[in-house]
Amino acid sequence: MTDVDVKQKVLAANAAAAASLREDFGRAATLVVNLISSPGSGKTTLLEKTALALKDTLRLGGLEGDIATERDADRLRRTGIPARQILTGGSCHLDARQVARALAEEGTRLANLDVLLIENVGNLICPTGYDLGEDFKIVLLSVAEGDDKPFKYPAIFAKAAVTVVTKIDLLPYVPFDLAAVREQVASLAPEGRILELSATTGAGMQAWLSLLTDALARKRAAVCAAEGVS
Amino acid sequence: MTDVDVKQKVLAANAAAAASLREDFGRAATLVVNLISSPGSGKTTLLEKTALALKDTLRLGGLEGDIATERDADRLRRTGIPARQILTGGSCHLDARQVARALAEEGTRLANLDVLLIENVGNLICPTGYDLGEDFKIVLLSVAEGDDKPFKYPAIFAKAAVTVVTKIDLLPYVPFDLAAVREQVASLAPEGRILELSATTGAGMQAWLSLLTDALARKRAAVCAAEGVS
Repeated sequence: MTDVDVKQKVLAANAAAAASLREDFGRAATLVVNLISSPGSGKTTLLEKTALALKDTLRLGGLEGDIATERDADRLRRTGIPARQILTGGSCHLDARQVARALAEEGTRLANLDVLLIENVGNLICPTGYDLGEDFKIVLLSVAEGDDKPFKYPAIFAKAAVTVVTKIDLLPYVPFDLAAVREQVASLAPEGRILELSATTGAGMQAWLSLLTDALARKRAAVCAAEGVS
Repeated sequence: MTDVDVKQKVLAANAAAAASLREDFGRAATLVVNLISSPGSGKTTLLEKTALALKDTLRLGGLEGDIATERDADRLRRTGIPARQILTGGSCHLDARQVARALAEEGTRLANLDVLLIENVGNLICPTGYDLGEDFKIVLLSVAEGDDKPFKYPAIFAKAAVTVVTKIDLLPYVPFDLAAVREQVASLAPEGRILELSATTGAGMQAWLSLLTDALARKRAAVCAAEGVS
């Protein structure tokens, strides 16, 4: 087998596991989002604030992908939602079988959720090709990272349904052309949405929370409609 | 062949190519550094400022690894040094054969340099295992990324001879515990050095430039001593 064959075999196995997860998530009407970004773009902080804002009205849970440390799952659990750390054993992305195994091992703690928040390994490249059964991918870009990133990492910005520009409270202190980022994202993902927020100050958070609750409402409606038909 | 076999074959081929590069760099007494970090930690900006500071006294050249765009090589060339973009075709790291091919194709433009600056693909994971024939690896961490990153990406912080904490001009605006980072780095790389700088304000730049010129002097002395012996 060549390395291309091996890669294709791995991706096919992942696709099968992802399809099975997607069926389960559909039956439970669980909205699943897959957050992808560089290390330090603010994925965990955004999820902490999301959990605090929504946990009293929705059943939330988190899966945290990392190379090492339980730190991010600990942070989510401290907000009061169930969360599990997945250590990838050196791999630069989560895969669907890791997600399935983690959910199975957590049992009822991560079952029948309204929203499952998956934080991928910090990396703009490797997670792009691995479907985790999610409803959509979300890519985060902190303003401190610079405004050239969508065109430098085009695959993930093209694939993500939502681009979230984070840490906008730092805009006065860094060179970052928001209009340039909007243009790059529009060209890579014409159907994609772009949000700008600061999880620290709360600016833009309402639009983000609405995006999640609206997507959940649409998913529930679609599940009901399908049940009505069948 | 299993995927583990394929990975081992790839790494063995890379090691052979890296050894050959290291011999060439030794003969030419070229100091070679391999810069690794998340996207947006400031690698290119640091190299631009390094080029501007040293290009009148030393022959510098750059190799820029990216998934897409010629942007970073363009930025280096604008400082007046020769630079070549290596587009990795989707791969999340440079490998030694790409470096060898790029140097061969550039011919005299990137030959007989005093310092070759290699900027790897933006990523704290994949570049760690690929030797490029460099004298040492340098990992960058921007203060905007947060102070938990060394323990979350331990392999690269353990392997890098130098950790450069960048964007310290943003310290007043972000939560970042420098002492915590120093402790993590000291535990992962007891022999490693840690520098803190802002390429924007120039703070800490002198120590960085001295680190490079001292390393170059040591390499030249070692090459002379070896020639004297043989």
